[in-house]
Amino acid sequence: MTGLKTMLNPKVTAVVGVSTTNPFSPGNVIFRKLAFENGLPTYPINPKGGTVEGVAVHKSISAAPDGIELAVISVPARFVPSVLTECGEKNIGSVIVVSGGFSEVGDTGASLQSEIVAIANKYKISMVGPNCIGVFVPEVLDTFFLPSERVARPRKGNVAIISQSGGWLIERLEEFASRDVGIAAAISIGNSAQTNVTDFIEHFGKDERADVILAYVEGFGSGEGRDFVEACKKIAPKKPVVVLKGGESEAGHRATQSHTSSLAGDNAVSKAAFNQYGVIHALDEDEVMAYAKVFSFKSKYMMGSRIGTLSVSGGHGVIASDEASHYGLTMPPFSEDQQAAMREVMTPAYRGIASFRNPCDLTGSASDMDYEQVLEKMLGFDTIDAALLLLLPYAPGISLQIGARVANVAKRYKKTVVSYVPDLDKYEVIIRGFELNGIPVGDTIEEAVQMLNGIRMRSKYLQHIGKI
Amino acid sequence: MTGLKTMLNPKVTAVVGVSTTNPFSPGNVIFRKLAFENGLPTYPINPKGGTVEGVAVHKSISAAPDGIELAVISVPARFVPSVLTECGEKNIGSVIVVSGGFSEVGDTGASLQSEIVAIANKYKISMVGPNCIGVFVPEVLDTFFLPSERVARPRKGNVAIISQSGGWLIERLEEFASRDVGIAAAISIGNSAQTNVTDFIEHFGKDERADVILAYVEGFGSGEGRDFVEACKKIAPKKPVVVLKGGESEAGHRATQSHTSSLAGDNAVSKAAFNQYGVIHALDEDEVMAYAKVFSFKSKYMMGSRIGTLSVSGGHGVIASDEASHYGLTMPPFSEDQQAAMREVMTPAYRGIASFRNPCDLTGSASDMDYEQVLEKMLGFDTIDAALLLLLPYAPGISLQIGARVANVAKRYKKTVVSYVPDLDKYEVIIRGFELNGIPVGDTIEEAVQMLNGIRMRSKYLQHIGKI
Repeated sequence: MTGLKTMLNPKVTAVVGVSTTNPFSPGNVIFRKLAFENGLPTYPINPKGGTVEGVAVHKSISAAPDGIELAVISVPARFVPSVLTECGEKNIGSVIVVSGGFSEVGDTGASLQSEIVAIANKYKISMVGPNCIGVFVPEVLDTFFLPSERVARPRKGNVAIISQSGGWLIERLEEFASRDVGIAAAISIGNSAQTNVTDFIEHFGKDERADVILAYVEGFGSGEGRDFVEACKKIAPKKPVVVLKGGESEAGHRATQSHTSSLAGDNAVSKAAFNQYGVIHALDEDEVMAYAKVFSFKSKYMMGSRIGTLSVSGGHGVIASDEASHYGLTMPPFSEDQQAAMREVMTPAYRGIASFRNPCDLTGSASDMDYEQVLEKMLGFDTIDAALLLLLPYAPGISLQIGARVANVAKRYKKTVVSYVPDLDKYEVIIRGFELNGIPVGDTIEEAVQMLNGIRMRSKYLQHIGKI
Repeated sequence: MTGLKTMLNPKVTAVVGVSTTNPFSPGNVIFRKLAFENGLPTYPINPKGGTVEGVAVHKSISAAPDGIELAVISVPARFVPSVLTECGEKNIGSVIVVSGGFSEVGDTGASLQSEIVAIANKYKISMVGPNCIGVFVPEVLDTFFLPSERVARPRKGNVAIISQSGGWLIERLEEFASRDVGIAAAISIGNSAQTNVTDFIEHFGKDERADVILAYVEGFGSGEGRDFVEACKKIAPKKPVVVLKGGESEAGHRATQSHTSSLAGDNAVSKAAFNQYGVIHALDEDEVMAYAKVFSFKSKYMMGSRIGTLSVSGGHGVIASDEASHYGLTMPPFSEDQQAAMREVMTPAYRGIASFRNPCDLTGSASDMDYEQVLEKMLGFDTIDAALLLLLPYAPGISLQIGARVANVAKRYKKTVVSYVPDLDKYEVIIRGFELNGIPVGDTIEEAVQMLNGIRMRSKYLQHIGKI
């Protein structure tokens, strides 16, 4: 699949299916993106010729100049086979078919889909789609035919996302952008008629720009589930592979049928198989975000499941305990000696009302320094494997510096530290203080606990295979 | 408990424990709020006298003028009994004790707490706290001793919130404010030494400004759990009571011990009991928000569990199906006739690629009008009890008008309609279009499904007791 490499970094592109009358047609949106946002040499194609945005339109792929490395096809389904054949004759190695109207709409579409797969295979074209929104590689190319003002794009980073649903992918882009998590690439595989999720898993397994691979899958063709988990198994020792599987309920499974007409329910792609193959199995969008984000930090490992928790609110400690328990993480009570050691470094005036059993509640009177010093003590205890901070910046003694201050304490220890900070604009300075210094921040208590769970699952797997 | 009514709407107040040297002490923050934000006649009290913000400080409650209806006490724990006695002698009927250092810090504190309860009872004072942040009634009073710039306050509305954790309550205020859900009052009951969650449940049961009661509880004293559920049972036929119970896991339960030293694990307060008594049991913060928000809309009932779903992305339909299934809601496939009826009203150019089985996927090509007309058809089918819209405003054919347009269709039917719209600033116009026209919007697919689940649970209960 060398075509994939070219597809994600083409030198010259073409967009087949621009309109000379409707500037908002998908083809035109894609053309404008490639040509003007990405600054790639891009040929617009339409049998009628003319110009688009001042650029001369070529009447066909055959009539266009040589050297095109990627063609994006956005024409009605019935015209796709002939366009694809022209691409083959022109030695274009990678093609994205965004057009819908294939296997997702019934038998006629399915036979059309078989036809284009045969053409792509014949000419050794790497084809993504049909029925997809294509690919987005920050700072390289963006074929998502959605106006830029409607969908935020995340910054360049180290998470590769592969999705069987374009809508799901778009929302992750928005979410990654708003949470400031960078991506290496985002791929909408659509009906995955030829290249499928496994091909991209393998690609990003080797791509050094991707440290985390995230996939949303709904179903697999016969035997493809097995290939998928085997590919994951090869990559898991090197980088985390996070998978959300849609259609796991009976109703959801039925819904996948009309969506991608893929076969869900392949036994190879089950929870048990995921565990066995080292796949991090996310159960919903919240877990997807938590796991993708925490792994993007290349966090320290958690050699066991014991968490020490530091809060300024008793209720938050209680809720975190419930959440941790749900994920099989424990908060062992600190011994009398440990409690005394933490109490001793706390501001004398507030020592008496603070509680150090675990979760520790420093109370709303705590200051940055209390937080720092108690954490320093706590990270030194060999009865915990990680620390969870529940930071409520409402308390008057907490300053905007706290993120960076606490992160600097954490740097001196080999243990993972994760913080919860409510995700509000006014706390952005705090959140950045944490994150730029290596501590991932969850925007709900649940997310912070899920982040620890992700690290623990990953560490456990690496312990199991003897890597750590 | 007539004292509670006065406490939530006092004519004259006093704050005991202002500092003449530290303008950021809790007493001073509270004084400034009551006197200047709420504009209530408020006497600052400190044995040293002097002035605070240009206002003369009285040396004691006894030395202050008569007519005080609410005293907020923020002095070290050991001084609380004598201050409280003065309040009693002065016929002050309601007192909020924000001071910590009582039962939450061990035996000495516990006996001090018994002492103040005895004093409050002797003088027939309604006392909230100790170890609380007090009460907030929009447009009336706000004793939360957190600088206004650190914590957003929601607008006036119809949800009453009662919480055993001040930190939890503060976060709900931020969340309600950011989601634009209004509140009738927010009460931090702290150690609930005298007045407890049940007293406030009863109060808001009668208070016409509250249409929804939301409580966060961690534990109960002996027999109090029974009182609590009995109070809920009386109110549930009239208005929804939503309860989140912290400390349900073993670890969480242990954490509640150091937090409020209350007895959790009262069998009366179990999931089964909640159902039996008509309580809406929220399992986490997400459900809390979903249920509180949807009930604040006084939504139409759901006479059964069958949902018709309308999306512009197949993946969203799949995920919604999985979520619905988790909550026992169904998405029955539409018949061939029903599908044909919906297809017929869809824009001809896109009919062929849309899918109408349920979930329906109108595809990214759908326009406002497609959404409207297909929904109109769908709401007319007697095989569904509610409609779920999964609205992705990324699609170029969707305009900012869509919220209002769709809401106007929904108004013509007796069925509940809930929509999912990603919660982004740029979609605020759409979200307001929905919500100002009576359709609650969830900001995740999960939340929209939870909203429907809340309505269904409530409707089922009301059907069970023969109210609808």
